[in-house]
Amino acid sequence: MYAEILAVGSELTTGAKLDTNSQWLSLALADLGISVLFHTTVADELDWMVAALKIASERVDVIIITGGLGPTLDDLTREAAARCVDVPLVVDEHSLAQIKAMFARRKRDMPERNVIQAQFPQGAEPIPNARGTAPGFWMEIPRNGRPPCRVAALPGVPSEMKPMFKEQVVPRLETGSNMIRRARINCFGVGESAAEQLLGDLTARGRDPEVGITVHEATITLRIVAKGTSTHECEQKISSTREIILNRMGTLVFGEEDEELEHAVIRLLGQQRKTLSTAESGTGGLLAHRLTSVPGFDSSYGGGYVVPTTAARLSMLEIDPRVMQHYGAISPQTAMALASACRRRFTSDFALAVTEWPSFKAEDSSQVVPASYIALATKKDLIFEEVTHFGDPAIAKSRTAKAALNMLRLRLLGVR
Amino acid sequence: MYAEILAVGSELTTGAKLDTNSQWLSLALADLGISVLFHTTVADELDWMVAALKIASERVDVIIITGGLGPTLDDLTREAAARCVDVPLVVDEHSLAQIKAMFARRKRDMPERNVIQAQFPQGAEPIPNARGTAPGFWMEIPRNGRPPCRVAALPGVPSEMKPMFKEQVVPRLETGSNMIRRARINCFGVGESAAEQLLGDLTARGRDPEVGITVHEATITLRIVAKGTSTHECEQKISSTREIILNRMGTLVFGEEDEELEHAVIRLLGQQRKTLSTAESGTGGLLAHRLTSVPGFDSSYGGGYVVPTTAARLSMLEIDPRVMQHYGAISPQTAMALASACRRRFTSDFALAVTEWPSFKAEDSSQVVPASYIALATKKDLIFEEVTHFGDPAIAKSRTAKAALNMLRLRLLGVR
Repeated sequence: MYAEILAVGSELTTGAKLDTNSQWLSLALADLGISVLFHTTVADELDWMVAALKIASERVDVIIITGGLGPTLDDLTREAAARCVDVPLVVDEHSLAQIKAMFARRKRDMPERNVIQAQFPQGAEPIPNARGTAPGFWMEIPRNGRPPCRVAALPGVPSEMKPMFKEQVVPRLETGSNMIRRARINCFGVGESAAEQLLGDLTARGRDPEVGITVHEATITLRIVAKGTSTHECEQKISSTREIILNRMGTLVFGEEDEELEHAVIRLLGQQRKTLSTAESGTGGLLAHRLTSVPGFDSSYGGGYVVPTTAARLSMLEIDPRVMQHYGAISPQTAMALASACRRRFTSDFALAVTEWPSFKAEDSSQVVPASYIALATKKDLIFEEVTHFGDPAIAKSRTAKAALNMLRLRLLGVR
Repeated sequence: MYAEILAVGSELTTGAKLDTNSQWLSLALADLGISVLFHTTVADELDWMVAALKIASERVDVIIITGGLGPTLDDLTREAAARCVDVPLVVDEHSLAQIKAMFARRKRDMPERNVIQAQFPQGAEPIPNARGTAPGFWMEIPRNGRPPCRVAALPGVPSEMKPMFKEQVVPRLETGSNMIRRARINCFGVGESAAEQLLGDLTARGRDPEVGITVHEATITLRIVAKGTSTHECEQKISSTREIILNRMGTLVFGEEDEELEHAVIRLLGQQRKTLSTAESGTGGLLAHRLTSVPGFDSSYGGGYVVPTTAARLSMLEIDPRVMQHYGAISPQTAMALASACRRRFTSDFALAVTEWPSFKAEDSSQVVPASYIALATKKDLIFEEVTHFGDPAIAKSRTAKAALNMLRLRLLGVR
């Protein structure tokens, strides 16, 4: 069964407001085994609304409309639905009594305009709204030679729409036999196309369950979507695909669902009873901020220095000034000197350090690639890595912090 | 001129991701006098994409497509556009060379699949992408007896899409006669209803220009929307309303447009040639991260300590252990001791310090309100402030960092 979500309102098409209802409804419908193929947002204009409803009723089996049910002149959902099936609007006395009662409870007179909220396309069933004055409705749009397209119209206010959907629309949608479950597996240290190559046939179209790839600031997320006739079947499908992914991606995988690299690092440090400190130039405190955002971080992360300037690096960490003079502030040697001094001062098992990087622009196409260095100091050794910068400078801090966390993660896993 | 925004991607129709591009594009098109009538979101399925494009090309004059330009098998925007006008996809050698150069700069081999990103519907103009591997394109869909519908296809990644739209789509769209201009004025240190009272009649419905209030993590943003027949008219309206707001809100105003408190602080420090350092417990590096995100911060912000634990506070800042023993880690005295020690060690003009806070839950209704303390050390004195915590614990770091920055801002302005 396929669905379309139709959001009504010029406040959405003009960009004055962001529509979050359509996303919420897509997830809620998927849980019932109903796939959403389209979201349509339409301005408050009767002809366009009627046209959008007709298009939707031809291409999907269920339409969920949000918005356009208020009492004002530009609230046209009722009229558009009536026109779509060529019936008049008729007053529902029960709904009218409920709206009047709501005004009475709020000790206000009901303005005459609110009567319109008790009008529905002839043949539609009102859907009561316990939290506001706008009832919704449920109706069918007949189709030639096919079962009718079913329509639920709900208010646009999320706190009214969501309970009305759960309590009154879900029971009307026969939940059929199709369930959907999702899982996310998060990887770091590989590009999008390389990830696709490693995954091989897993990302092929039409595979069951489906595996999709998205990238955000160098983190690769693999999304598994499993369909089945029971929760158990979906979960079994996810579990077997998850195994294949873990197998093919190996230590590129650092977490699942909402887990970030800092969660993986704090977890591994905790398991191994090790401690970490940080010395940050270019990342300017972001590494510390991320680590201290993990619940229970304080048994593993001791703290850090933010040393964006040469003066701060020299005076706070007391590193040998000749290192920076000789190799430069942006060098593997400076990164390692910072990590080593930081580890000593915090008496931690590990220290991560980040140098600064030269300023650069997204559209820079010069052959000299801006780079920075990250280093890890342990009890036994000092290692470093080069991080190259390109694309949006705004994400350089985030990408570099992730690269540093990943270097430590791989060491804690014993793979470098 | 009417427009439709077509967002492509099953990650949107399934609800896995929220589409924010369509809202941004609606606002950007309105600035050009182009009204957006529809947003359509379509799953990654070729037939549906072609159908959605055809419907859009009949009802509007301009279509902006976002997404579906990646290198993977489910990126079908190029193919759908070609099919819509019945032309083949052809390789653009210049774009291919640019994609290859981008991989070369990143020192990676270009996977064979990325060749597809240099393919465009025959007759389309490539729109180069300086920030990623996915170029967009500009094309026209012919219509019987009407001028062609114009189409811009852009990547779905906002940091790539936005500059491409501004730099390369805007010049291609001739502008209309109804202009809209917007301005934002940012305030801190007052609640939403108190701000509304201070603003008086400015927020009345129907006022020209309109003034709206939104709140995000304790920052109050006043949004002015002015309509007129020329840019000049809009700007004059904004300018006079802006004056009234600055007058009524006084030093509560810290910045305009995207300016945050850290920008105001770095600007004031720069003007007064003063320097700052930080010592953070509860905010765990967020204060440093925000300060180091301001361009040119390094002449004013010297760096800081992240000292989430008592051990780190004692050993790194060498504060008198009796202060914490006597008054507790969460006390004005500890905040002031941290600020004072930090200022001394960084030899800066000012130091801001933040204590930790007790853990709490959003739904906590106990009578003991969780609190933390922030302190400012200057050459002459030491001041502190209590920050109480309630609501979502996830924003405690952000709210506390803002309160600390605001304390320094008010001192730099000479009002405390």
